[in-house]
Amino acid sequence: MGQVEKTLAEMGIELPTPTAPVADYVPFVRSGNLVFISGQMPIGPEGCVTGQLSAEDHSSDSTPSPDTKLGLAIGAATLAAVNVLAQLKVTIGDLDRVTRVVKLTGFVNADGTFTQHPQVINGASSLMIGAFGEAGRHARAAVGCSSLPLGAICEVEGIFEVA
Amino acid sequence: MGQVEKTLAEMGIELPTPTAPVADYVPFVRSGNLVFISGQMPIGPEGCVTGQLSAEDHSSDSTPSPDTKLGLAIGAATLAAVNVLAQLKVTIGDLDRVTRVVKLTGFVNADGTFTQHPQVINGASSLMIGAFGEAGRHARAAVGCSSLPLGAICEVEGIFEVA
Amino acid sequence: MGQVEKTLAEMGIELPTPTAPVADYVPFVRSGNLVFISGQMPIGPEGCVTGQLSAEDHSSDSTPSPDTKLGLAIGAATLAAVNVLAQLKVTIGDLDRVTRVVKLTGFVNADGTFTQHPQVINGASSLMIGAFGEAGRHARAAVGCSSLPLGAICEVEGIFEVA
Repeated sequence: MGQVEKTLAEMGIELPTPTAPVADYVPFVRSGNLVFISGQMPIGPEGCVTGQLSAEDHSSDSTPSPDTKLGLAIGAATLAAVNVLAQLKVTIGDLDRVTRVVKLTGFVNADGTFTQHPQVINGASSLMIGAFGEAGRHARAAVGCSSLPLGAICEVEGIFEVA
Repeated sequence: MGQVEKTLAEMGIELPTPTAPVADYVPFVRSGNLVFISGQMPIGPEGCVTGQLSAEDHSSDSTPSPDTKLGLAIGAATLAAVNVLAQLKVTIGDLDRVTRVVKLTGFVNADGTFTQHPQVINGASSLMIGAFGEAGRHARAAVGCSSLPLGAICEVEGIFEVA
Repeated sequence: MGQVEKTLAEMGIELPTPTAPVADYVPFVRSGNLVFISGQMPIGPEGCVTGQLSAEDHSSDSTPSPDTKLGLAIGAATLAAVNVLAQLKVTIGDLDRVTRVVKLTGFVNADGTFTQHPQVINGASSLMIGAFGEAGRHARAAVGCSSLPLGAICEVEGIFEVA
């Protein structure tokens, strides 16, 4: 187990064995030093975290309870990011070969009244920084989607630089 | 005519002569070995395929009839992907120079109840695999958009690796 | 001051000192010759330009008045693009080092009836061409989002090639 996986384990996170996408594409493609990971859903042992956020889910709490919908969404973003890393591990064998998390795009299932997309996607971003430290600091966009596959509450895709 | 175009012809697909975008941008940019193709609409001889999908368009049929809205959308995704390849051909001259389809992003015009975005964008993905074989297997994200240019039912952009 | 900044100054545009994102990510990452700039909001001295577009904001006027909502949105796209360039300047020190604007993605806050996303994002694209000339001609996607961070009327992210 590499250092990054040890760090994840200390954070209480074990990478799942990713499943193949049920569609005509693949979970990752490497081109040169860049690895592109397909959009991952917040799918865990209990299935996909679904839902749509609206203004009534807003919170000024920087770490809202997982019992709230915003807290649920933040946890879902972390879960989607774990699935990104699980796919990445399959691609490159050892996450220690990551030299930089380049870019994340976070798609948030939200209606027209929601404005806290960054808080949701921080659930993915903080995982990257926790796992990779300085190399985990990435460019990012977070946007609202009218709907997502499976009714997922969020979806996260990533670009990584590897040695 | 290169091998990829011959394969497309056998699939009954002839690449159109693409039109220039009616806006302040270009259809493609090459940087190093990567070619970025601008988001393409499902525009064919009969104009742009428009519409918005919702839960009532869901189907458990893996190849829904083109007479259904889901089938229409899948065909539109194929058409948008054809337009991506048409632009790519202008860029690089011969599609045989593609070494890998790196990434597609599929934007689906859908309301808050729709969940079958992957099925729609499979219309684009299967074209790539049909045209390029193993090199056509790509990373992907499929998301729901509240609306799209021209009222298009979908939009597809792509990143390609070329020799 | 480099040539690109002089050109911007002639266009009446001074690059602001960008603020750090209030989240767990960074405004830019460089990998090889590519620089990825995080999604930027249309934030100026008077705050973030907010709102959502619909069909009633459509206009056949190619340069709608800033007093209209469409005109406001186009100006907001320019402002978001200025913020992209401000972040880029911090990254690379001198915008004259840009060899190509590779790709912009423009996210437009729009309901299901809006179709003029390209007109909105032209506000960003025309800035790039004004600033960089031929090197400013970029690939692009413009899509409708159900909502955006802070309630922003648009968001723009970019990929640049630098020497």
